[in-house]
Amino acid sequence: MKTADPPGGRPAYEGLIVLDLSQLLLGPYCTMLMSRLGADVIKIEPPGGDPLRMYRTASGSETAAFALMNTGKRGLRLDLKKEAGKELLLKLVEGADVVVENFGPHTLGRLGLDYRVLAERNSRIILASGRGYGLEGPYRDYLAMDLMIQAVAGVLTTTGFPENPPVKAGVPIADMTAGIHLMAAIAVALYQRTHTGCGQHVMVAMHDCLLPSLSSPLAAWLDGGTQPERTGNRHSGLAVAPYNVYPVSDGWIAILALTDRHWQNLCGAMGRAELADRPGFATNSERAERMDEVDRIVSEWTAGHPKQDLFELLGTVGVPAAPVLSLAEVVKDPQVRAQGMLQEVEVSGGRREVTFGSPLRLGASPPVPVSPAPGIGSDSKQLLVEKLGLSAAEIEELSDAGVI
Amino acid sequence: MKTADPPGGRPAYEGLIVLDLSQLLLGPYCTMLMSRLGADVIKIEPPGGDPLRMYRTASGSETAAFALMNTGKRGLRLDLKKEAGKELLLKLVEGADVVVENFGPHTLGRLGLDYRVLAERNSRIILASGRGYGLEGPYRDYLAMDLMIQAVAGVLTTTGFPENPPVKAGVPIADMTAGIHLMAAIAVALYQRTHTGCGQHVMVAMHDCLLPSLSSPLAAWLDGGTQPERTGNRHSGLAVAPYNVYPVSDGWIAILALTDRHWQNLCGAMGRAELADRPGFATNSERAERMDEVDRIVSEWTAGHPKQDLFELLGTVGVPAAPVLSLAEVVKDPQVRAQGMLQEVEVSGGRREVTFGSPLRLGASPPVPVSPAPGIGSDSKQLLVEKLGLSAAEIEELSDAGVI
Repeated sequence: MKTADPPGGRPAYEGLIVLDLSQLLLGPYCTMLMSRLGADVIKIEPPGGDPLRMYRTASGSETAAFALMNTGKRGLRLDLKKEAGKELLLKLVEGADVVVENFGPHTLGRLGLDYRVLAERNSRIILASGRGYGLEGPYRDYLAMDLMIQAVAGVLTTTGFPENPPVKAGVPIADMTAGIHLMAAIAVALYQRTHTGCGQHVMVAMHDCLLPSLSSPLAAWLDGGTQPERTGNRHSGLAVAPYNVYPVSDGWIAILALTDRHWQNLCGAMGRAELADRPGFATNSERAERMDEVDRIVSEWTAGHPKQDLFELLGTVGVPAAPVLSLAEVVKDPQVRAQGMLQEVEVSGGRREVTFGSPLRLGASPPVPVSPAPGIGSDSKQLLVEKLGLSAAEIEELSDAGVI
Repeated sequence: MKTADPPGGRPAYEGLIVLDLSQLLLGPYCTMLMSRLGADVIKIEPPGGDPLRMYRTASGSETAAFALMNTGKRGLRLDLKKEAGKELLLKLVEGADVVVENFGPHTLGRLGLDYRVLAERNSRIILASGRGYGLEGPYRDYLAMDLMIQAVAGVLTTTGFPENPPVKAGVPIADMTAGIHLMAAIAVALYQRTHTGCGQHVMVAMHDCLLPSLSSPLAAWLDGGTQPERTGNRHSGLAVAPYNVYPVSDGWIAILALTDRHWQNLCGAMGRAELADRPGFATNSERAERMDEVDRIVSEWTAGHPKQDLFELLGTVGVPAAPVLSLAEVVKDPQVRAQGMLQEVEVSGGRREVTFGSPLRLGASPPVPVSPAPGIGSDSKQLLVEKLGLSAAEIEELSDAGVI
């Protein structure tokens, strides 16, 4: 960050203690970001562990997905279905700042751990809950995963080619957008606590979080528009040209001209300067009327070149453009590496695991070293001594009883 | 929120002043959320206004898109390319808490308004910048809009049917996820300021913000997986069945069985209880091996029913399911209305505009009344009196000079 950092700045969340009951993607992304800001994040897992540990493989072995989302946290195994486990959690709440969970609609209440119970132990505690749907409305008790929310929030109907069925975004945008909304809600509650001295219950629903991303298609619908609900890679309002993904010699490249200046720059790059001012092509509204012809002209040019050459050329002359990268290309992308968004962390035995950097860049909050993802309960003993002052005998008893 | 709200709670951001230079979607979503928390958001527009006002229509008329993202803000017109306009902004900075902008890579510096300049006027100011790419790396100076970021971050390669070309998510997920990340970064900086007394420069890049949503496909790639990069509406690892979008008599419905219990519940709903334990179908790994057959069985059942009937039935018996809603259906969805995520605001002349509620639900931060979206500079005079104490003559002079 080229900013005037206060010298000797400390991480923004240093000293905060987060009890992380969350699993899969929504909550763990939220708490990973908090750990990157210096919070002490304690990942509390049931005896079987976060399902993300085995989410993708039929073989039941732990996958890279867990490390991507859970580095920088410490691990505590705790069976909350046992009374002694619940009591340990409540004792931890007494010294903590935030509890994060994304269980199903009624799980926390069934465990006897709703906000009132936590607040009785610690009025400064912030309970943060991620859900599929909100607390009101006809769907409030329905099970919801990312695919469901994408379907009901209108993402599917707006994604794909008009001649094909609706299709989901290939990445779990409902989970992820809810995760960062939850982190924002916690951050606001921490700020508010500096004034009130009190914690509170904050909540986000995936369904609510995804809806505002529909603003453009919704606006078109509210304006009485008549274009198809999905337009492939074209502008959702079919009102901008060129705006598409074009074939190249080794795949595809996205190019768009939002302004006439972009179009003029593109014509120059294509060696077709004469097109820039030609009647029928000079303005966006003219080009949008002959979208197929414009796309054909651009395609004929792009098809003969590799995508990286075009990316550099168009980037340099001021045309918005970017290659469609494969997963293998994303992993090796020098931009991703330069920003530190994919990092390797050394784990015991010299093995290295890949994890994410944080998209939150704060000039006054220096980066913290990232520790490897915990095993299930890999820090249980240390945490129970450090946070609750338990003796070795007490810890052994809890372990024998299957509580930790 | 069924929480123990502190009686007489005030909105979390009441008293904060946000100078909002942002445009289109990224910044305006961030500042709309802050306005819903009680911040005084002043939308500062150039003489021509935020391009979102005319973004979608060839006719150049203002669209519903602007109101969706800009209610709850006040409007100040300011020409920052004029020295007097820049000086007015700096005077406002002296009494403000946050400045938000999502200009191109070098615009703020060219205007002479980078963080150091602002901090000289007010060391408590937080400058929040949204960008396409981060400050490091080979793409840092390239123009980037949502489509570019989706392409280069791997969203296109993972979206669509395997037999078709890559396709974008139909909603601008790069813009929107960056907008909420920026809001989270501001919230952290406001918290940190309560300790340090100092502001800072915070920044997010759309590219960085979108990458963590790739965790599942990236993990599959890191684990050495061999499934196709895009799998339509099936599980991205082809490891869960049923997991798809199925035809119904009036469209499509998404159904998945993440656990064997979900599968048993689904078999019961289909009137095919005998399938639940049949060898070859009883466990997810067996079902994933005969995915086509499982999908055929589910499709034959769904095809005879309307989607709302199946949604209610499956929701009630505990199977994750949701209908693929059209835009018209989303607008009328009782769940959306019950949660207040689409609201109508009365504007002058009895006209009503549609806007979003906030997905951030804070038990101790009561909702604030939502005012209509501002016109370009519709509050200029009032704001210059209220914030800077200008006289009517001074305001008229600035107006005549085209500064406001």
